[in-house]
Amino acid sequence: MPRTSVKVDFDSSLVALGASIRAKRRQLHLSQEALADSSGLDRAHMGKIERGERNVSVLNVLRIARALDMTAAELLDAAKL
Amino acid sequence: MPRTSVKVDFDSSLVALGASIRAKRRQLHLSQEALADSSGLDRAHMGKIERGERNVSVLNVLRIARALDMTAAELLDAAKL
Repeated sequence: MPRTSVKVDFDSSLVALGASIRAKRRQLHLSQEALADSSGLDRAHMGKIERGERNVSVLNVLRIARALDMTAAELLDAAKL
Repeated sequence: MPRTSVKVDFDSSLVALGASIRAKRRQLHLSQEALADSSGLDRAHMGKIERGERNVSVLNVLRIARALDMTAAELLDAAKL
């Protein structure tokens, strides 16, 4: 579903990504700490990512997606990105 | 299609993402310079991204995807990430 002329509000994109990570994490009954550990990320960093305060790298998106047992594409799709 | 126990080789993930960007760019008959401009990225940086030499940020993935008239999820899916 390609977007053409939508003006992208990047902050809300990061917030949407963080929210979709949080929603999937909760669905799996994982704590933020457990997700951070299984993603190989620092817990505080994971918190900032979930709050949309970090412009996450694609490799960290991959790590988080794997830890949530989904593909990075599925994770971004869930965030409508 | 969630992956479970696949050991992720991150370098190849970045190369796959770069290749899918390059393939879509060529499909649209865009030069690397034109894609860099429309993504708001530096041309040399775009070259490194296409060669898989950069751990791209999610916002830059979004910028590139928009410039290629697709969603970031579609772009990552094309790279099987």
